[in-house]
Amino acid sequence: MVKKVLIIYAHQSSGSFNAAAKNAAVEVLTAQGCTVEVSDLYAMNFKATATAEDIKGDVKNAENFCYLEESRIAWEEGRLSDDITKEQTKITEADLLIFQFPMYWFGLPAVMKGWIDRVLTHGFAFSQEKRYSQGVFKDKKAMLSFTTGSLESMFSPTGINGDMNVTLWPLQNGILNYCGFQVLAPQIFWAPALTADEDRKSMLEAWRTRLQGLLEEKPLSFFSLDCFDE
Amino acid sequence: MVKKVLIIYAHQSSGSFNAAAKNAAVEVLTAQGCTVEVSDLYAMNFKATATAEDIKGDVKNAENFCYLEESRIAWEEGRLSDDITKEQTKITEADLLIFQFPMYWFGLPAVMKGWIDRVLTHGFAFSQEKRYSQGVFKDKKAMLSFTTGSLESMFSPTGINGDMNVTLWPLQNGILNYCGFQVLAPQIFWAPALTADEDRKSMLEAWRTRLQGLLEEKPLSFFSLDCFDE
Ligand SMILES: Cc1cc2nc3c(=O)[nH]c(=O)nc-3n(C[C@H](O)[C@H](O)[C@H](O)COP(=O)(O)OP(=O)(O)OC[C@H]3O[C@@H](n4cnc5c(N)ncnc54)[C@H](O)[C@@H]3O)c2cc1C
Ligand SMILES: Cc1cc2nc3c(=O)[nH]c(=O)nc-3n(C[C@H](O)[C@H](O)[C@H](O)COP(=O)(O)OP(=O)(O)OC[C@H]3O[C@@H](n4cnc5c(N)ncnc54)[C@H](O)[C@@H]3O)c2cc1C
Ligand SMILES: [Zn+2]
Ligand SMILES: [Zn+2]
Repeated sequence: MVKKVLIIYAHQSSGSFNAAAKNAAVEVLTAQGCTVEVSDLYAMNFKATATAEDIKGDVKNAENFCYLEESRIAWEEGRLSDDITKEQTKITEADLLIFQFPMYWFGLPAVMKGWIDRVLTHGFAFSQEKRYSQGVFKDKKAMLSFTTGSLESMFSPTGINGDMNVTLWPLQNGILNYCGFQVLAPQIFWAPALTADEDRKSMLEAWRTRLQGLLEEKPLSFFSLDCFDE
Repeated sequence: MVKKVLIIYAHQSSGSFNAAAKNAAVEVLTAQGCTVEVSDLYAMNFKATATAEDIKGDVKNAENFCYLEESRIAWEEGRLSDDITKEQTKITEADLLIFQFPMYWFGLPAVMKGWIDRVLTHGFAFSQEKRYSQGVFKDKKAMLSFTTGSLESMFSPTGINGDMNVTLWPLQNGILNYCGFQVLAPQIFWAPALTADEDRKSMLEAWRTRLQGLLEEKPLSFFSLDCFDE
């Protein structure tokens, strides 16, 4: 069966290292017969901020607007704004999501955080019953692929930035695992701007090689929801 | 000496619990003689996305636009956009920053992440030499004050969300401590929407009490930069 891949991509420049990593993924996965779609957030001028404009028609409580509640109802009633609905359709169709971005302040660039905040609507992406190991997207895979400015040594368990796994916990557990995605190991491109061109090319080659077997990789382990009380 | 406080506030609604927490801070701190400024990000329609429009005049390399580099140069040359410069002036004048927000996906709402990405410019907020314990803002304090949807038990070390301290690491270490701020303990309002009105009122009372001694609190401990090699 043809696999569908959605790449959520956040870089301002088509000449960047992030663009090269994204292009490599498109090429290698397409060559393998996958259908690849790219959401190029800056190019789309993607709205980052969660506001009442995300809801078509009247909101239920304009005086005390509650985004969590209003967006859930709007999703149920098919009244989310078109840009959100389009992204949701892409997720529904995808077998694998790749988030490609430069690390900004130990996390996602705001435009990509806005995609998360606005697109992973309550009801669509999770509910009280459907979270973590029982999550909505448990038959899909997702992964982070990102560049840093820091060297790897700074993000080691004994480095000043601390263990990269800790920094990634809110993203890999709080977003991806929370929605049920099988989380593939992150692809980290350490400090491309501080790296010799030759070594950057090797990093991209290693990524191409990984991409060939990506869909068969075993995901990271998280505790099952069964291990916890309510 | 009169202390200046900057509250960076991200909620869509003036009737929300976050608004009440922000208002409490304004009241109590003003009553103590502080000068309090509020950056109400949704009301300001604050731009969240880091783009070339943040730079006035020509960029150095339009073909391969690098935000980190271009924004650093623009800061040096006084060519950052006015909305960024205004926020930077507020930080420069402040003794204490309070970030007031609802937790979105284990982190900041995108609009507040955008404030971080765009306002804490390389050069202005940090440099290769001025980071962590040698950070630019080492004479200032900063703290997170936020609401959750989850109950506290889910964010305990044995809860499915994991220890809240881990989730806050990228924010408290990666942003605040990185820029040198003395980080005050976070103020966490657990699940106000699931709480009885009476108990919500008690939460706000406890916050008011804390605010009275806030500027004298001892900050959290982080390792000094001296403990690490280059
Ligand atoms: C707001 C902000 C916050 C940040 N916070 C953090 C943080 O918390 N932690 C951290 O570590 N870093 C941080 N950074 C740094 C940021 O992560 C890096 O600047 C970014 O990851 C570099 O990736 P890039 O794609 O922009 O690289 P580029 O600058 O585009 O590329 C690096 C080099 O690769 C070259 N290149 C492009 N394509 C190819 C190719 N096909 N083959 C070989 N070479 C190629 C480019 O020409 C360039 O020389 C932050 C930056 C900003 C702006
Ligand atoms: C995109 C998104 C992502 C999210 N991700 C997470 C997550 O990762 N983790 C998590 O735990 N939660 C998450 N949530 C939930 C979110 O954190 C909560 O909805 C939010 O923190 C509640 O705060 P609020 O100010 O909106 O509360 P409100 O809904 O405004 O208020 C709660 C109650 O307090 C009442 N109230 C207001 N003022 C007062 C007052 N002065 N005195 C007494 N009562 C008052 C209100 O009337 C209301 O009944 C997410 C929500 C969204 C939209
Ligand atoms: Zn709410
Ligand atoms: Zn760059």
